[in-house]
Amino acid sequence: MVEETSGNEDLARIRGLVFDFDGVLTDGGLWWGPGGEEWKRVCFADIMGVSLARRTGLTLGLISGEDSPLVDRYAHKLLIQHVAKGCRDKAQALRKFAAAAGIELSDICFMGDDVNDLPAMEIAGFSAAPSNAIPGIIVRADFVSTKPGGNGAVRELVEAILRARGLSALEVFNRS
Amino acid sequence: MVEETSGNEDLARIRGLVFDFDGVLTDGGLWWGPGGEEWKRVCFADIMGVSLARRTGLTLGLISGEDSPLVDRYAHKLLIQHVAKGCRDKAQALRKFAAAAGIELSDICFMGDDVNDLPAMEIAGFSAAPSNAIPGIIVRADFVSTKPGGNGAVRELVEAILRARGLSALEVFNRS
Amino acid sequence: MVEETSGNEDLARIRGLVFDFDGVLTDGGLWWGPGGEEWKRVCFADIMGVSLARRTGLTLGLISGEDSPLVDRYAHKLLIQHVAKGCRDKAQALRKFAAAAGIELSDICFMGDDVNDLPAMEIAGFSAAPSNAIPGIIVRADFVSTKPGGNGAVRELVEAILRARGLSALEVFNRS
Amino acid sequence: MVEETSGNEDLARIRGLVFDFDGVLTDGGLWWGPGGEEWKRVCFADIMGVSLARRTGLTLGLISGEDSPLVDRYAHKLLIQHVAKGCRDKAQALRKFAAAAGIELSDICFMGDDVNDLPAMEIAGFSAAPSNAIPGIIVRADFVSTKPGGNGAVRELVEAILRARGLSALEVFNRS
Repeated sequence: MVEETSGNEDLARIRGLVFDFDGVLTDGGLWWGPGGEEWKRVCFADIMGVSLARRTGLTLGLISGEDSPLVDRYAHKLLIQHVAKGCRDKAQALRKFAAAAGIELSDICFMGDDVNDLPAMEIAGFSAAPSNAIPGIIVRADFVSTKPGGNGAVRELVEAILRARGLSALEVFNRS
Repeated sequence: MVEETSGNEDLARIRGLVFDFDGVLTDGGLWWGPGGEEWKRVCFADIMGVSLARRTGLTLGLISGEDSPLVDRYAHKLLIQHVAKGCRDKAQALRKFAAAAGIELSDICFMGDDVNDLPAMEIAGFSAAPSNAIPGIIVRADFVSTKPGGNGAVRELVEAILRARGLSALEVFNRS
Repeated sequence: MVEETSGNEDLARIRGLVFDFDGVLTDGGLWWGPGGEEWKRVCFADIMGVSLARRTGLTLGLISGEDSPLVDRYAHKLLIQHVAKGCRDKAQALRKFAAAAGIELSDICFMGDDVNDLPAMEIAGFSAAPSNAIPGIIVRADFVSTKPGGNGAVRELVEAILRARGLSALEVFNRS
Repeated sequence: MVEETSGNEDLARIRGLVFDFDGVLTDGGLWWGPGGEEWKRVCFADIMGVSLARRTGLTLGLISGEDSPLVDRYAHKLLIQHVAKGCRDKAQALRKFAAAAGIELSDICFMGDDVNDLPAMEIAGFSAAPSNAIPGIIVRADFVSTKPGGNGAVRELVEAILRARGLSALEVFNRS
């Protein structure tokens, strides 16, 4: 794991970007209906962030401990090719992502928010967490967003990566 | 674009008021159900704000990048005549609004929250953004509300326009 | 309208307690589904507050500008007998409440959050608003809660009334 | 009830952990649909917290004043064996839990957020409340989380108990 004061060179090296779903791309909430229905909340600022990351050429992945159809739905909407669901061993899932995508672990960033994300965060070259992640995760992440999960945390990370590459969100959006 | 310290004369000139939908009139969230249902959240403070703007004689429009039936629903409920959905080029959509409404771009305010709103914000005579817009948008907006999108940002802009015209929300409400 | 520094004697005099619904007992939000469904959010802290007010002997009412079945549902669940929906003139509705309940307007508190609530707030002996009410309402209310609407604002008002009567929420809860 | 400055020895003694549902494991909100549907929101940080508490060997219980199928759903998902719903007398329900689980009341922690939770909090050896509990509850609780109900309050309590036992969330997660 790199220093928390990781500079631009660490962010600029990232070629693969992998997210936990609940608490990172969602706000960590689970709305329950009387018939057992499960709803989750994502946001458009993050959706645009994921889209900008893809247009910049980053390879994207989702690794979720839950086995929810909403993960597939998000991946489908955002054209994310690498998805692992119902995942007990996220480090193993991240290694599979690295192999499938042909990217070294050292050039991959994993963003998570809870203890089950830590093994993946630790083998990734760069780790990130939303502002409202569990304290034990916050202290171990290379990058901690100022915004909470599901409310711009992912977007903030993507914009930091773009800046490290000398790009702005506006430039990436305009050229595509 | 006018100065960020734009005074009353800029606000008082506004005759057309056009909003992005997601993140401006909604909180930017997208609730997803297991069957692919999409829910969004608007608020009554903004609904009253849009209603007051209409009663004051402003011409209203919605320009959304998404193609959601909720945009039509909002327009229908609030009697907003000009609607553009699934819109890739928001500057072009704003020019169409200006032509259809017979209002100069210099007398139109566009409120947006993300990079795809910037082209429309830049050709509008006045631009506005909610407090939780993307940083790149915040720095370019003439008016930044203290409240976030979907939670009073639009209302705050409308009340500022009313004040610039020497009106209060209460007066406008009472006389109609 | 009494002074903003209204003391216990004003609160202790209250015999009738009437609420606007959206933004006072709800958080002012409106969740919209694809088929036009409307959802709203209330909270248990307020539900307990309304229940405590009733057990203390206060006569309760709901006056809503919207014509939503959720108002009836709330009234039914909380045993609130006086309900006015789809109400354009809230002052008139409050006068009807006063007559039906046999309580002088001077002994009634109305809690609202937007300009359409102001006429009722002005004829009531005591007026209240949640912390996130429209600024023009905040400055005119005798009591402003520290919590926002739908998140304890009503409970806070009820507890202030109980304290003015020398009661605590715990005492009222225990004796019933 | 122990001192508010209760130290590790109090937390380390806890063998049974019992939660109120609404406002503790949920955010206290109730989403209502037009057909009378009721939705509630829980979060994954708390779900992981409850899971960690169970893996550490704590006996878990839910005691709810509401009679909602979501309480059973939560208990089923999290393998919580002791559930009391529609409960008027929570102290009695906690005594039943103690007897059924074979744990002294002095070794049980009850977490609640409103006046109907106080009787159970007072007979429990240790009491806890989320940051947004009713003030009258906050002042009586041995432990008050920094996070609100349904958003990490339960997780924070569980991590404090783990720390008092010399454990971390990560250790407990890894060894299971």
